[in-house]
Amino acid sequence: MYRSRLSTDLSDLTLEYVSSIKDDYQIALYDILGSQAHTLMLYEKQIITKNDTKKILSALESLKNEKFDNLTEAEDIHELIETLVIKKAGITSGGKMHTARSRNDQVSLDIRMKIRDDINIICNCLLDTIEALVSLAKNHQKTIMPLYTHLQQAQAGLFSHYLIAQADVLFRDFDRLYVAFNHVNQSPLGAGPVGGTSIEIDRHSTAKMLGFDSVLENSLDATSTRDFVAEYVSMIAILMTNLSRISEDFVIWSTSEFSFIELADEFTSPSSVMPQKKNPDILELTRGKTAEVIGNLTAILTTIKGLASGYGRDLQQIKSSIWSTSKISINALLILKSILLTLHVNEKEMKKAAESSYLVALDIAEKLVRNGIPFRTTHKIAGGLVQLAHQYNKSLNKLTVKEISKIAHDAKVTPNLIMKIIESTTITSSLKERKSFGSSGYDEQKRMIEDRVKKINSYRINATKRYNDITKAFDDLSGKVTELIK
Amino acid sequence: MYRSRLSTDLSDLTLEYVSSIKDDYQIALYDILGSQAHTLMLYEKQIITKNDTKKILSALESLKNEKFDNLTEAEDIHELIETLVIKKAGITSGGKMHTARSRNDQVSLDIRMKIRDDINIICNCLLDTIEALVSLAKNHQKTIMPLYTHLQQAQAGLFSHYLIAQADVLFRDFDRLYVAFNHVNQSPLGAGPVGGTSIEIDRHSTAKMLGFDSVLENSLDATSTRDFVAEYVSMIAILMTNLSRISEDFVIWSTSEFSFIELADEFTSPSSVMPQKKNPDILELTRGKTAEVIGNLTAILTTIKGLASGYGRDLQQIKSSIWSTSKISINALLILKSILLTLHVNEKEMKKAAESSYLVALDIAEKLVRNGIPFRTTHKIAGGLVQLAHQYNKSLNKLTVKEISKIAHDAKVTPNLIMKIIESTTITSSLKERKSFGSSGYDEQKRMIEDRVKKINSYRINATKRYNDITKAFDDLSGKVTELIK
Amino acid sequence: MYRSRLSTDLSDLTLEYVSSIKDDYQIALYDILGSQAHTLMLYEKQIITKNDTKKILSALESLKNEKFDNLTEAEDIHELIETLVIKKAGITSGGKMHTARSRNDQVSLDIRMKIRDDINIICNCLLDTIEALVSLAKNHQKTIMPLYTHLQQAQAGLFSHYLIAQADVLFRDFDRLYVAFNHVNQSPLGAGPVGGTSIEIDRHSTAKMLGFDSVLENSLDATSTRDFVAEYVSMIAILMTNLSRISEDFVIWSTSEFSFIELADEFTSPSSVMPQKKNPDILELTRGKTAEVIGNLTAILTTIKGLASGYGRDLQQIKSSIWSTSKISINALLILKSILLTLHVNEKEMKKAAESSYLVALDIAEKLVRNGIPFRTTHKIAGGLVQLAHQYNKSLNKLTVKEISKIAHDAKVTPNLIMKIIESTTITSSLKERKSFGSSGYDEQKRMIEDRVKKINSYRINATKRYNDITKAFDDLSGKVTELIK
Amino acid sequence: MYRSRLSTDLSDLTLEYVSSIKDDYQIALYDILGSQAHTLMLYEKQIITKNDTKKILSALESLKNEKFDNLTEAEDIHELIETLVIKKAGITSGGKMHTARSRNDQVSLDIRMKIRDDINIICNCLLDTIEALVSLAKNHQKTIMPLYTHLQQAQAGLFSHYLIAQADVLFRDFDRLYVAFNHVNQSPLGAGPVGGTSIEIDRHSTAKMLGFDSVLENSLDATSTRDFVAEYVSMIAILMTNLSRISEDFVIWSTSEFSFIELADEFTSPSSVMPQKKNPDILELTRGKTAEVIGNLTAILTTIKGLASGYGRDLQQIKSSIWSTSKISINALLILKSILLTLHVNEKEMKKAAESSYLVALDIAEKLVRNGIPFRTTHKIAGGLVQLAHQYNKSLNKLTVKEISKIAHDAKVTPNLIMKIIESTTITSSLKERKSFGSSGYDEQKRMIEDRVKKINSYRINATKRYNDITKAFDDLSGKVTELIK
Repeated sequence: MYRSRLSTDLSDLTLEYVSSIKDDYQIALYDILGSQAHTLMLYEKQIITKNDTKKILSALESLKNEKFDNLTEAEDIHELIETLVIKKAGITSGGKMHTARSRNDQVSLDIRMKIRDDINIICNCLLDTIEALVSLAKNHQKTIMPLYTHLQQAQAGLFSHYLIAQADVLFRDFDRLYVAFNHVNQSPLGAGPVGGTSIEIDRHSTAKMLGFDSVLENSLDATSTRDFVAEYVSMIAILMTNLSRISEDFVIWSTSEFSFIELADEFTSPSSVMPQKKNPDILELTRGKTAEVIGNLTAILTTIKGLASGYGRDLQQIKSSIWSTSKISINALLILKSILLTLHVNEKEMKKAAESSYLVALDIAEKLVRNGIPFRTTHKIAGGLVQLAHQYNKSLNKLTVKEISKIAHDAKVTPNLIMKIIESTTITSSLKERKSFGSSGYDEQKRMIEDRVKKINSYRINATKRYNDITKAFDDLSGKVTELIK
Repeated sequence: MYRSRLSTDLSDLTLEYVSSIKDDYQIALYDILGSQAHTLMLYEKQIITKNDTKKILSALESLKNEKFDNLTEAEDIHELIETLVIKKAGITSGGKMHTARSRNDQVSLDIRMKIRDDINIICNCLLDTIEALVSLAKNHQKTIMPLYTHLQQAQAGLFSHYLIAQADVLFRDFDRLYVAFNHVNQSPLGAGPVGGTSIEIDRHSTAKMLGFDSVLENSLDATSTRDFVAEYVSMIAILMTNLSRISEDFVIWSTSEFSFIELADEFTSPSSVMPQKKNPDILELTRGKTAEVIGNLTAILTTIKGLASGYGRDLQQIKSSIWSTSKISINALLILKSILLTLHVNEKEMKKAAESSYLVALDIAEKLVRNGIPFRTTHKIAGGLVQLAHQYNKSLNKLTVKEISKIAHDAKVTPNLIMKIIESTTITSSLKERKSFGSSGYDEQKRMIEDRVKKINSYRINATKRYNDITKAFDDLSGKVTELIK
Repeated sequence: MYRSRLSTDLSDLTLEYVSSIKDDYQIALYDILGSQAHTLMLYEKQIITKNDTKKILSALESLKNEKFDNLTEAEDIHELIETLVIKKAGITSGGKMHTARSRNDQVSLDIRMKIRDDINIICNCLLDTIEALVSLAKNHQKTIMPLYTHLQQAQAGLFSHYLIAQADVLFRDFDRLYVAFNHVNQSPLGAGPVGGTSIEIDRHSTAKMLGFDSVLENSLDATSTRDFVAEYVSMIAILMTNLSRISEDFVIWSTSEFSFIELADEFTSPSSVMPQKKNPDILELTRGKTAEVIGNLTAILTTIKGLASGYGRDLQQIKSSIWSTSKISINALLILKSILLTLHVNEKEMKKAAESSYLVALDIAEKLVRNGIPFRTTHKIAGGLVQLAHQYNKSLNKLTVKEISKIAHDAKVTPNLIMKIIESTTITSSLKERKSFGSSGYDEQKRMIEDRVKKINSYRINATKRYNDITKAFDDLSGKVTELIK
Repeated sequence: MYRSRLSTDLSDLTLEYVSSIKDDYQIALYDILGSQAHTLMLYEKQIITKNDTKKILSALESLKNEKFDNLTEAEDIHELIETLVIKKAGITSGGKMHTARSRNDQVSLDIRMKIRDDINIICNCLLDTIEALVSLAKNHQKTIMPLYTHLQQAQAGLFSHYLIAQADVLFRDFDRLYVAFNHVNQSPLGAGPVGGTSIEIDRHSTAKMLGFDSVLENSLDATSTRDFVAEYVSMIAILMTNLSRISEDFVIWSTSEFSFIELADEFTSPSSVMPQKKNPDILELTRGKTAEVIGNLTAILTTIKGLASGYGRDLQQIKSSIWSTSKISINALLILKSILLTLHVNEKEMKKAAESSYLVALDIAEKLVRNGIPFRTTHKIAGGLVQLAHQYNKSLNKLTVKEISKIAHDAKVTPNLIMKIIESTTITSSLKERKSFGSSGYDEQKRMIEDRVKKINSYRINATKRYNDITKAFDDLSGKVTELIK
């Protein structure tokens, strides 16, 4: 292998080393659209003639159907597309397309258009997944389960509560991406190599044609800054850690020891020899892919950290990290949504687990608090009761007055009060009385679910508007192009 | 050393391993304020008596003067403060302070209050640094320098343009932190260990007393989610890469080979044997500390990624990464501001460098474009001229008609047009004619600087408002406490 | 807070920013020893007089008792110690100590001496922990448990097998660190600021006095390379991921759902209200600290990646990452060893879990293979049997000939063969027959345990030799110093 | 786009999510070889018949010519190859190939074989690059340049010294990889899914046939541990930081401000408008790719850190990080070698830079030391002289007795001594007298270069032996296969 490596022609090797063409098919369409807008602006500003404009736009239009994958010859997509335009439109016309811009503003433009679309897609996927969580929560408002801290059972709760928590986290992921969009959606086009141009271009016009909210003003900033990439990938890294946590929970709950949930067959890998066994490979992959996104973020920050100002070729290397990050998060969300919609929940096992521990101990302590006993004392009492029950190997409500009298005496409480409280406390009563804002009681579930349903709708409206704004800009651009070249 | 290690008492070692007390003095005050608000709410909701309330609040008030550093005995600050309150107020009263909350919501509360303040500090520092950049830019609107890509001279530009680019980047850092604040500034207090409480607390009341914008609702979410930490540290990591880039630029410009700038003595380390030499150690440290913050972010994301839902002790470990991140960014900004304000700029060297290259080549090409010659052709012409001048080792305007005739002929342009353009093109003319929006020409500098001055002011108003809102909430809380315990 | 920040004197702030003194007490002793060796060499090479030598050595000797913590004034320990020596020995003598070396070789020297000791400590701790694993394995050669893949039960196995796997992993960690030591244990002393010196020093002599194996030759390499740091921290990062995995296993096995093990009280945090609950906080912290070490590694690599050659101050920042890495790994190992030695293993629960699944299915398939049936067919048969048993909700050995006849027919096997194999296959028989090299059968456990005991002993000899070599060098150095200054 | 995403069939999406087939063509050949060795062993141990063996081996042999790229249907290469073998050899024979192994040991086997080869390739590339460095050093033993600390000129030195420093660093990279090989080159084959097998296989035999040094014994360890991956990628990350540093140096030295070196045209990207400008894109890409490898390492460690023991599908995700790491390092080395061999060194500029500073100041100080004056005092003197010269804007040897008298007086040294020393000190004299071991003087260069030439040869022998050992094993295996199937 070493020998075959060495026999590779050095210039091929070098071209492969510097070329980003294999990754660039993902931005080919954006490059074409950007070039069309730029050409139209040059025409509107009377920098190029109508004839030149028509030829360039026609050439670009015809390239829209190219796939641009499996390319190896060119160094990047920008060079390739210009070459093809010149080939089709001739040097006299085609040679004018690149007027008053440079590869440095162009590559930033294309990446921004790509991330912008990715954010819109991810925001939609997030809402779909949230919807699946909330819809599952609706069905499990009365499904009792233990809530865990340190993976140890800590309090009784409801499965819907868990699901809403995850929905709330994803709402925040939506918020983060929705805001990150603002820094992405600024046009660098026309900034030139680094310092601008003396040709009288109209950067606001191209920005508008391409659906940007504004122009990224300073030309040095516009060509060499990648903070918007780091911001985007950070937000996705956080999103992925959230999906990873759900995956981790589900992997644990899918063990035969927990048996809380069962994944649909299509999301597990069977063992040929133990067909009843369902390996949660797909959830494990979400965890693994989360690590990959964290690695992507490290790579991007480490790259940016090492740069002086002004475009440096190091930045080319981060493109594949961006694409990988987007793809992972979109697919992970699409699959999680489907997992949720096909999930089998073993309500019995969940309830059994909740009942087999002494999860009402905290509720007993709280009832004592409501009788004026200091929290720290009530905790001591409840702790003593649990220890007794544990020692006698019975449930709390089987304890006798005699058994609890020492505890009562030490805490200066009447045994009867304690007995009364124990008797009146079950997991169900506990969940009825759990009414603090945002708690895992019955009433709060109802309220929270209703609220989240409304929230999804209002988020949908925002997401759709953004999506439509860009679509409209592209339609208008396409209209102008068609009008001119017809 | 190994032996001395081994002779350490295991229980001491274990305590040190689990304890966060050494890091916790940074949140002691927040823990006290949070406990005061919680106690007041318990009183207002008639869960504890006025007498209990007074005793607890007095105890807490007296703890405000403690330093809490150099502690080693306690496991964490929450435990320690409660112990001290019980000691001062007695178990009957003090034992009630912790009613209807848990360490899990408390630690999240304290971290949120700390990050909230850190964000406000950093936002102010950012504006100070931006102000220094813009004020320096004002003085250097006519300071000519080469603009670089790939660390190679690419276009002539103005030093103010560089400075505004950095200011614009920092404005976006401000934006990011300003928005991240919203996810931080939500109160988890009262969420309990994981599932809420049956005691009728008012979480909105404590939130308001502590200056929070809202309540972080779902109790599982409130106690175990650290997305706000990852969000904050991501934003700081990006900010630091921006400071690192300025540092990198300044390190390079401080070399004797570049000699563009000279740092004030207080920001360099002299060599004892070469006193004229000024090592830019402090800028190098900013680069090194940037790497540390990236490492902190990796640690935090890696920790969070590994967790199931519900509080896990792994989360304790991220506290020191947060503190370190805040401290680094605040100090780096304060120092950068001072570096800027004391910077010596070698205008002569900058100009000399700009003139010694053929930086007007692009301008010549653009003038040809304005004469209707295709961009790609003009580039070929300009390239040919530069090559000629390089070959004859003279500047472009020393080329003769004869020398350029072949180039003109090949490009089908009259030599006279080229000569005229060359003659009329100097770096100064170039910067006069560079008028595209956001470019590095004279006019744009003036416009951009004026605009940034206004922008700083409007950002100041927002930053101040936030700062004041929290201060006001704390003042009100303090007033209530004083009123009750007097 | 912001105001108090701003009122800090800038020069204090700057000093704090550039100073490493707070971290440096950890290398103070190494700095003194290095200075003694260097001084002795200068004397032996007749570069300084006996009188100067005595004064310097006496001053250094007296500094050995200083603690050097809680310092804030000096910039670093090297400067501080030289200042103190000059103060004690006078400028005429003390001013000669730093002859023919620089801070750049000195700081590398001190870090190398520190890491060298840390590696020796960690290697010893590793052997202690391995010993604990193997000793626990001895007691659990017959403790049946399920072995997991994807956290799903996959095959029956023995607990000792798990423990030996962990021991083997840690042996490799030992190997890695043992080898990394070689790149650490090279002396940079005398390399000067970057390019060496014209003074006729003997670098080999100081290297030998300080217990180094060799001299790190090239002076540029010696002063600015930190690959040995990255190598060390990488190895520790890998070690920590191994400890994290054990922690993860133990956290899961400590859940009430698994109940395989119970940690000793001193390694858990109780809940005040549920005293029977044992939170495995310490294991969670090992996971969290693993993330911190990964973050340290990222920070170090990111720092190094950004540097040009020649010492840069960025490198100062990595010191605290090294110290933190060493401390975490040493403590994590010491605690894990104690956890293992005090672990309660619920053999019953482990066995119950192993028996409640169809873990013999693979053994049945393998017996069919030994009857000449293709592996893929035997898997189909076994799978069919498990599905049947699962469907009828009974164990495999309760299946009747009739029930299995269809499966047998499809696979063209006689039902009797299958019945015979099922009857003869239990978990115990399976573990008796599991004899492949390194497998989880009874015989292999015995063999492997015996082998590991021998391996520990031979590793101990190597570890001790290294430790003793350095101790001896230091004793000799100390002897020389005492001899001279008496 | 969103809509097109959503219309993708879910099962396609899921298959793509779980499939590693796109990455697996890189290990297809290893999978075939591993399967052949396993099959031969099954035959030798009389577990399968000669007839079955022949059929399986023939089928495998025919697959060697498959390319296996552009596949999308299968989940992974192991499944695919078995399917194809069964198709060719029939279920009765082909269905036996997978006897007594599992995908879990198989995937580990293939990765180990791939990394093993990659290490051998990289070790060879390292030696080639080292050879290029040393050969360049031979030509530049007298090329004077400034040596830098903090990017500031610090001492005069020789370019060969810089090159040898880089060679020495790469020798250590070789060492690290050479050792890491040992942990990679252990065979996991036959470990089964996790706990081994009852079939009497011979794991040592397959290990030997595949050129492994030993068997990775414990079956749990063999199937689920990836420490060897983390070790390998760590070592490459360190290697890449070393290449990144050379790249950083060369980027800076290629600026028009430094002008120390000029890269050959094939390793730069020209600007169309400034053809004399040579952008060092390829070196920047090496820096960027270094960041990518650091990201890969983060991803791998983060993945491993999150796992419980036993194979988890998360591990699949790290495969592409490994491939990317190998490819980057091989190509970066091949290109760096060629860059070195075609490098143009501007000796004049280097010397000019060295002479324009006061780089002899340290040498003057050292000569004073040799006259018995304390180091700290000599530094003060030299510093004073430099300051004077700087102030009068002349070189040191132009200072008059009168000018230096104050300095001499303060230091209690005769002005004549100082004058004499100044006069006798030039950069050339300095480099003649610089004789400390490993220093940047003339004599040391000669000695070091000769030594490195020998070292390369002895390293070559080791590298070649390893390469040949594996080649021989494969030839033998191929011989056995051919013999059987002929």
